Amino acid sequence: MQNAKKLHLQLQPLVRNRYFELFMMGIIIFSALLIGIHTFKIDPIYLEILITLDTFISIVFIIEILLRIASYEKPLNFFKDGWNIFDFVVVALSLIPIDGNNSAVARLLRIFRILRIITILPELKIIINALFKSAKSISFVMILMFIIFYIYAIVGIVFFEGAKSGIWDNVGTALLALFGIMTSDGWTEIMHESMEIHSLSWIYYLSFIFLTTFTFLNMIIGIILDTLNAEHKIEDGKIVSQEYKLLEKLEIQNQILMQKIEQLEKKIKQDES
Amino acid sequence: MQNAKKLHLQLQPLVRNRYFELFMMGIIIFSALLIGIHTFKIDPIYLEILITLDTFISIVFIIEILLRIASYEKPLNFFKDGWNIFDFVVVALSLIPIDGNNSAVARLLRIFRILRIITILPELKIIINALFKSAKSISFVMILMFIIFYIYAIVGIVFFEGAKSGIWDNVGTALLALFGIMTSDGWTEIMHESMEIHSLSWIYYLSFIFLTTFTFLNMIIGIILDTLNAEHKIEDGKIVSQEYKLLEKLEIQNQILMQKIEQLEKKIKQDES
Amino acid sequence: MQNAKKLHLQLQPLVRNRYFELFMMGIIIFSALLIGIHTFKIDPIYLEILITLDTFISIVFIIEILLRIASYEKPLNFFKDGWNIFDFVVVALSLIPIDGNNSAVARLLRIFRILRIITILPELKIIINALFKSAKSISFVMILMFIIFYIYAIVGIVFFEGAKSGIWDNVGTALLALFGIMTSDGWTEIMHESMEIHSLSWIYYLSFIFLTTFTFLNMIIGIILDTLNAEHKIEDGKIVSQEYKLLEKLEIQNQILMQKIEQLEKKIKQDES
Amino acid sequence: MQNAKKLHLQLQPLVRNRYFELFMMGIIIFSALLIGIHTFKIDPIYLEILITLDTFISIVFIIEILLRIASYEKPLNFFKDGWNIFDFVVVALSLIPIDGNNSAVARLLRIFRILRIITILPELKIIINALFKSAKSISFVMILMFIIFYIYAIVGIVFFEGAKSGIWDNVGTALLALFGIMTSDGWTEIMHESMEIHSLSWIYYLSFIFLTTFTFLNMIIGIILDTLNAEHKIEDGKIVSQEYKLLEKLEIQNQILMQKIEQLEKKIKQDES
Repeated sequence: MQNAKKLHLQLQPLVRNRYFELFMMGIIIFSALLIGIHTFKIDPIYLEILITLDTFISIVFIIEILLRIASYEKPLNFFKDGWNIFDFVVVALSLIPIDGNNSAVARLLRIFRILRIITILPELKIIINALFKSAKSISFVMILMFIIFYIYAIVGIVFFEGAKSGIWDNVGTALLALFGIMTSDGWTEIMHESMEIHSLSWIYYLSFIFLTTFTFLNMIIGIILDTLNAEHKIEDGKIVSQEYKLLEKLEIQNQILMQKIEQLEKKIKQDES
Repeated sequence: MQNAKKLHLQLQPLVRNRYFELFMMGIIIFSALLIGIHTFKIDPIYLEILITLDTFISIVFIIEILLRIASYEKPLNFFKDGWNIFDFVVVALSLIPIDGNNSAVARLLRIFRILRIITILPELKIIINALFKSAKSISFVMILMFIIFYIYAIVGIVFFEGAKSGIWDNVGTALLALFGIMTSDGWTEIMHESMEIHSLSWIYYLSFIFLTTFTFLNMIIGIILDTLNAEHKIEDGKIVSQEYKLLEKLEIQNQILMQKIEQLEKKIKQDES
Repeated sequence: MQNAKKLHLQLQPLVRNRYFELFMMGIIIFSALLIGIHTFKIDPIYLEILITLDTFISIVFIIEILLRIASYEKPLNFFKDGWNIFDFVVVALSLIPIDGNNSAVARLLRIFRILRIITILPELKIIINALFKSAKSISFVMILMFIIFYIYAIVGIVFFEGAKSGIWDNVGTALLALFGIMTSDGWTEIMHESMEIHSLSWIYYLSFIFLTTFTFLNMIIGIILDTLNAEHKIEDGKIVSQEYKLLEKLEIQNQILMQKIEQLEKKIKQDES
Repeated sequence: MQNAKKLHLQLQPLVRNRYFELFMMGIIIFSALLIGIHTFKIDPIYLEILITLDTFISIVFIIEILLRIASYEKPLNFFKDGWNIFDFVVVALSLIPIDGNNSAVARLLRIFRILRIITILPELKIIINALFKSAKSISFVMILMFIIFYIYAIVGIVFFEGAKSGIWDNVGTALLALFGIMTSDGWTEIMHESMEIHSLSWIYYLSFIFLTTFTFLNMIIGIILDTLNAEHKIEDGKIVSQEYKLLEKLEIQNQILMQKIEQLEKKIKQDES
């Protein structure tokens, strides 16, 4: 029992060591490179080496996870942190052998190991958090965007049904085509096809591009202003608080002054009488 | 008469109930999905079900509108709010039977029901209002943009008239092509066609892309700055007012101090004499 | 002589009249529309009408310019304003008959009449001025951009000379192609052609897109920050001055207080002695 | 020895002279133009002239570098400035004769002479510095971007392996294709090819475009906010310090007032007793 206690105390400095983290980052990058090399056509001899290296990497990952679990006083506390669970699941899933029947699945699961870099680099965690924050603030614009897309998809089908390109066959193909138009990839061709059916179709396409671009721009501006205001308030708060404290101090001094002068007055009145 | 009064008082909590709104939102989304499913090729048996469901939805919409009208003390006041009129028109227009002769028109009008989500979600109303505001502030840039487009269209026709692609046939085709060039969709091909007529045509295309991109950028920056300034003023106003109030308080205290000291002076002078 | 004086005083309210300006704007837009209609294939009968209308518009423009010149006390002062010279030149150039030998040139010069809308709408003048300002602040980034383009053009020619598409034949074609790549119009095809010559060509294309996008972004950010700072300084200046004045007032009051108390001290000392 | 001293003192005003710098800038631009002209097919006669001019330019560059080295008291100090080393290397490398065996290499090295404009124009140095600064602040977003690209590349290969276009053959081709998709150049075609293999492939492409666009936008916003905050702090700092100094002065005055009044009190107490 006492040995175990000693163990987790001995492990903590190792697990939190910067060089240990750099070593693990190296292993993660190396692991990602292996999967990348695997996509090229390679000699069976080298393939053998790749699989051996993959087994080695899997063992390193297991040892690292076990060490980190053991470094907790109560090992189950390891699973109280979301990022730890994430690491554990990623490592556990990538234990499927890469040369077995489910080679494709195994490769797919292995690639998510690269996400462990986020766990190691705190700067990436900050960026991920910022992304989630701005994702929230744009969720309603996304709903509005989808409404615009959906309406244009149905309107497009009603007007251009039966076009040869098959874009306006159903709401699924129409929504996909509209997404392509928004990224302005080959939209002029689609418009010209439609203009053979209705010569005024350009109104449909131009209004769609205007509306989506405009909504998109307002979304970006929205994010900028939201982030700017959030930071501004904190900063302005600091500045104000500095000045404000000094002003409050001045006010208290003034009140003391006032009291003193009033006391003086009283004294002088007393002297008179 | 008294019953009616009781009725609208009983209806108000129902109509403003969050669960009632969520139910209506569900119906709206379900209605939009039905129209979407309708665009796929489906068995006549399922088509029957679709039409039955559509009738059901139409009835729900009518009941909801009637309930909301009845929830007003004076039912006609319902029509004093723009959004209510919008809801009423959307529901009224979508009463055209979907399996009749005007199937296409019916579907077209039904899809606008999805816009009723905006009436239900207040966050979307805010975004719509923001869009209208920034639409105002860019209206003059749009005029300038159109002037640039129009001049380039005429200049293009004068120089490249008779090109095989038919782009420079009249001011309509030219304006459309210029819009495509601005979104940089296949503009290099158009330029190369023109360069066979005049080898210096690249000046025309490059200057157009420069001018429009530049004007567009300035429009975006304009919106950002306008919104930023508007919010800035309000915030700064608050901060200043806080400090300002304290400063004014200090000034008043100082003046009282002054008066007290002056009184002291007078007293002492009186004592002397 | 006195008649002439009276004339220019009578003309001023007419020329500056809002309805007169609206009428001229209508004429300008009508003139632009005529040139637009001219680009469509039209019956010779209607062509006659077009030419008659064009003559009428030209006369209206001449009368308007003459009226405005006459509205100045010294008619030559009319030419001291840049915008007036601009109007005069535009009107003078568009006097070439549209049905003569130089039909194309005449149409070309006529289209610039539409620019006169800028002279009439003050909001457009403000936007034009803003555009010129930001044009200045980006001029050096444009030089840097051109250096990047030029280096990549020469490097591209050295490496990919002799490619079938003829893009890398000389510095002119190369610069044009690079501009197309920057707008990401069909750049992947150009890259694949180059990769057949050198398999590492993707480094060239990716680095070019990175560099230009990055420089472009920094240019935009630069404009935003420049404009923001300029407006910020003015506003902050106002806020500060308000608070500052109050603070200075407080300081002066404090000094007066000090003097009064010092006088009191002296008095009391005198009383003692 | 004394002559050498005199020399560097005489050279300094020459080297730092604005006209000398303008002359050198002219030579740099002329040099770049020559390389540009060289890429066109030209008569052997003119080629002779080009080579002669190139030799002349090389000599001017050598003289200029020697003059600048000589203008230093200790000539080796010239190499202590990074930009000077840059200039020296560029000039040294471009001494390879342009008509020799390594014509291509010679032309390649010569083009970097144009970068010397950056050394001469201080405004360009500022922009370059700003670019490096924002490059730092986006480095971690670039890492995140690369992780997203790498994962999507492997996932794409697992799902779409064997597609005719050869895009999903290995991780290299996949990464290149994904970069093309991010710039939205012909991505709809690639998606339609994949949708023939898996009909739900659009999820892959749409999620990729969403993720990369979103990360890219956040990067831009990040740069804007970073730069804005940096400038904001400096400015706010100035404003605060101005007000703050005045406030501190007021506080000190108040304390003096307090002391004076306390002295008064003591005096009066003494008088009484």
